[in-house]
Amino acid sequence: MDFAKRDLPKRSENLSEWYNRIILLAELADYGPAKGTMIFRPYGFAIWELVQKELDARIKEHGVANAYFPLFIPESLLKKEEAHVEGFSPELAVVTIGGGEELKEKLVVRPTSETIMYEAYARWIHSWRDLPLMINQWNNVVRWEKRTYLFLRTTEFLWQEGHTAHATHEDAWNTVTWAIETYAKVYRELFALPGYIGMKSESEKFAGADRTLTYESLMPEGKALQSCTSHDLGQNFSKTFGISFQNKDGVSENVWQTSWGFSTRSIGGLIMAHGDDAGLRLPPRIAPVQVIVLPVREDQGITDLAAEVERTLKDAGVRAATDGADRDSIGSRINTWELRGVPLRAEIGAKEVEAKSVTLVRRDTREKISIPVGELAKRVPEILEAIQKDLYDQAEAFLKENTRTVENYTEFKEVLAEKHGFLSAFWCEKESCERAIKEETKATTRCLPLDQKEEQGTCVYCGEPAKHRWLFAQAY
Amino acid sequence: MDFAKRDLPKRSENLSEWYNRIILLAELADYGPAKGTMIFRPYGFAIWELVQKELDARIKEHGVANAYFPLFIPESLLKKEEAHVEGFSPELAVVTIGGGEELKEKLVVRPTSETIMYEAYARWIHSWRDLPLMINQWNNVVRWEKRTYLFLRTTEFLWQEGHTAHATHEDAWNTVTWAIETYAKVYRELFALPGYIGMKSESEKFAGADRTLTYESLMPEGKALQSCTSHDLGQNFSKTFGISFQNKDGVSENVWQTSWGFSTRSIGGLIMAHGDDAGLRLPPRIAPVQVIVLPVREDQGITDLAAEVERTLKDAGVRAATDGADRDSIGSRINTWELRGVPLRAEIGAKEVEAKSVTLVRRDTREKISIPVGELAKRVPEILEAIQKDLYDQAEAFLKENTRTVENYTEFKEVLAEKHGFLSAFWCEKESCERAIKEETKATTRCLPLDQKEEQGTCVYCGEPAKHRWLFAQAY
Repeated sequence: MDFAKRDLPKRSENLSEWYNRIILLAELADYGPAKGTMIFRPYGFAIWELVQKELDARIKEHGVANAYFPLFIPESLLKKEEAHVEGFSPELAVVTIGGGEELKEKLVVRPTSETIMYEAYARWIHSWRDLPLMINQWNNVVRWEKRTYLFLRTTEFLWQEGHTAHATHEDAWNTVTWAIETYAKVYRELFALPGYIGMKSESEKFAGADRTLTYESLMPEGKALQSCTSHDLGQNFSKTFGISFQNKDGVSENVWQTSWGFSTRSIGGLIMAHGDDAGLRLPPRIAPVQVIVLPVREDQGITDLAAEVERTLKDAGVRAATDGADRDSIGSRINTWELRGVPLRAEIGAKEVEAKSVTLVRRDTREKISIPVGELAKRVPEILEAIQKDLYDQAEAFLKENTRTVENYTEFKEVLAEKHGFLSAFWCEKESCERAIKEETKATTRCLPLDQKEEQGTCVYCGEPAKHRWLFAQAY
Repeated sequence: MDFAKRDLPKRSENLSEWYNRIILLAELADYGPAKGTMIFRPYGFAIWELVQKELDARIKEHGVANAYFPLFIPESLLKKEEAHVEGFSPELAVVTIGGGEELKEKLVVRPTSETIMYEAYARWIHSWRDLPLMINQWNNVVRWEKRTYLFLRTTEFLWQEGHTAHATHEDAWNTVTWAIETYAKVYRELFALPGYIGMKSESEKFAGADRTLTYESLMPEGKALQSCTSHDLGQNFSKTFGISFQNKDGVSENVWQTSWGFSTRSIGGLIMAHGDDAGLRLPPRIAPVQVIVLPVREDQGITDLAAEVERTLKDAGVRAATDGADRDSIGSRINTWELRGVPLRAEIGAKEVEAKSVTLVRRDTREKISIPVGELAKRVPEILEAIQKDLYDQAEAFLKENTRTVENYTEFKEVLAEKHGFLSAFWCEKESCERAIKEETKATTRCLPLDQKEEQGTCVYCGEPAKHRWLFAQAY
């Protein structure tokens, strides 16, 4: 592992190289044999399991039930919604052979499940009594990507996709906002990742949606990450798929629909945002191991105290584990767990046995804290919460520093070239300006923040009247 | 729903028709648009979630970690293990187009993950310190089927697949038996489905395994259901994929491997085994709703008591739900929840409000039990356990009655023709006899029960010496 650590480029010097290497070194993930695919190794998958546990509970609380729809979508079904197929067709993986024979109709591996789910919704929904229909699924989806990036952009990824149908647009819209706010909580409270909730522009919205809400966070080199989205589908799909219901007056109406997804892409943001030159720094609430207990050497007294410490912590609800002295040197084990970003390590040697105490080292600050064993159950959860808060505060300060208001295009280009980050600028909402800005600066509209008030301004690009400041940034 | 119920064939008269209809009527599942695929609707998926919760905890307790490997396996990788590819090649779905272009190498949609996982194991395992490596994944797999059957045989199904690598064959074998015993516990304790643990014959074992253990249960029309399997892979894959480790003496050795899976097929067995002419009968431990509270009509006193009953039951750890009187008549709601097999319904009308009691009706026996509200928290869990036990006892009696020892081929054929079920018969273990029996009677060797002792006998088919009685049956 000393070798491994020397092998890690400095995050401050080469974020992208650091990112690729730390994922492999910390055993979060590995490359799959087919181009663009990845393996979620146990340590990386454990993070996803913590996300699932939290998000699944919140989704169920909202009255949404889990289900599972097929992986394969007949090509004709996918093609039913025009805007939808246009958006996804360049990214499809297609099964043409089944059981040794050429298929009569090609099967698309789902890039998302709107079409296959709504074909069923049309059969299941008849009356206002059947509404709202609120279904979620945890599954794998495939979108063919030319340039791939571990976690952030892979051919196959994991996510949950929620799909609801309502009697009124108001009900649907409430679900759209509930979903994005729930996602924002997961990002803020678990991932310690602040960001902006906002509306996507017409050109950046989901293929088939009326409106798309997004949560946009900021990565260390100043690029934005679209972290998750929630879509107001209006009646676009319900008209195409014929999803209608008899209202209480016996009149037939089309349902109003939403879809929303949170993917393993989020873990890429987590890794990138909080690391340092020594490796990962995982926020405690999302760390698979919160405290790693390290007996300094092989010795009965030390082993016994280590076991006691692990048990005490587990009883206090802390995710603790022990990495014993029989397999590797203490130096090497410290390096390993620093790389892996475990928030606290508990070193236990002869000194600790004598004092019946533990030396805790914070991964984020390297601060050493000596704590009597009897106080662990109370103090460790407090320290973990303090680390969680400190990581969030750092990320928030970074986000604030790197969100800059600009008044004209010269300033826009200068700030972008020097400092990156988010730019808050008036835009007239014409696609031609958005496209020109993108071509000239690589910055795209990220969103119109939901709390942005209406103002009088002029478009940063064309000078025509503009009502809102939008957030622009270069993005992953 | 009255209509729906009339639409249900009698289980006692036509099991297969009953099975297909009850799955749709109870909203457990629906057909997917691509041939052989199915949709797990929320009520059916909730059963799978209960399985996952139980099995996932037991798997983790054993020290196995969850991970996720890619869906797509390059064709060349799948072909590496000869016996394995021979077994699976007729069942493959193949992606030939990605991102609008013909792929240079075809990608197989995983039918199981041995090859893609072991390619990685070869890179991850170096030393005895890396062993045992024990990984599980919950995922979807695809096996092209000509004749499909909801839950029991679908092109895509859900399962967990565990894959472990060990330093010794003894360690590996312990995992093989641990897995099948864990599965048997889930079947017996949750599904109330007794069965036989045994070894598969050479011709019936997993493609690539040295030995396969199975759990075989018996369905009402006397056919066997292979419910799950656990494989001793020996060193077959580790030799092909070059998975080796330095032992403590510095000598390189190949690892010993296992794989084991439990799938959504099991839910098919659950449905078939316990239903009756009125619909499903779900064993309480696996029922998504254990008690359905039914207010007889719209009335404040009734609604209040129903809410109190639901809350009391939930606080007692019972999965309770209420189906209110505002949407449908009481008769129709009773039918619906009978169809859906909820173990207990709690009817609440004016009489119950006056007496501050609840009338419970057992789904399995239709017995009515009146219980004061104050005793619900204590009595309901007891009644649920009693139902669980009764369903198991019935299934066990059925299994015993329908496992018959036969001494010669005439008797074998007679019993099979008249009564189906399991036949315990001496077999010489030659494939030719096994094949002839299958061709002539459609019965296959199901397994050699693990607790079967060695005896002196003669093969039921050829009369040659035979050491063991095997179990034979027609199977799904």
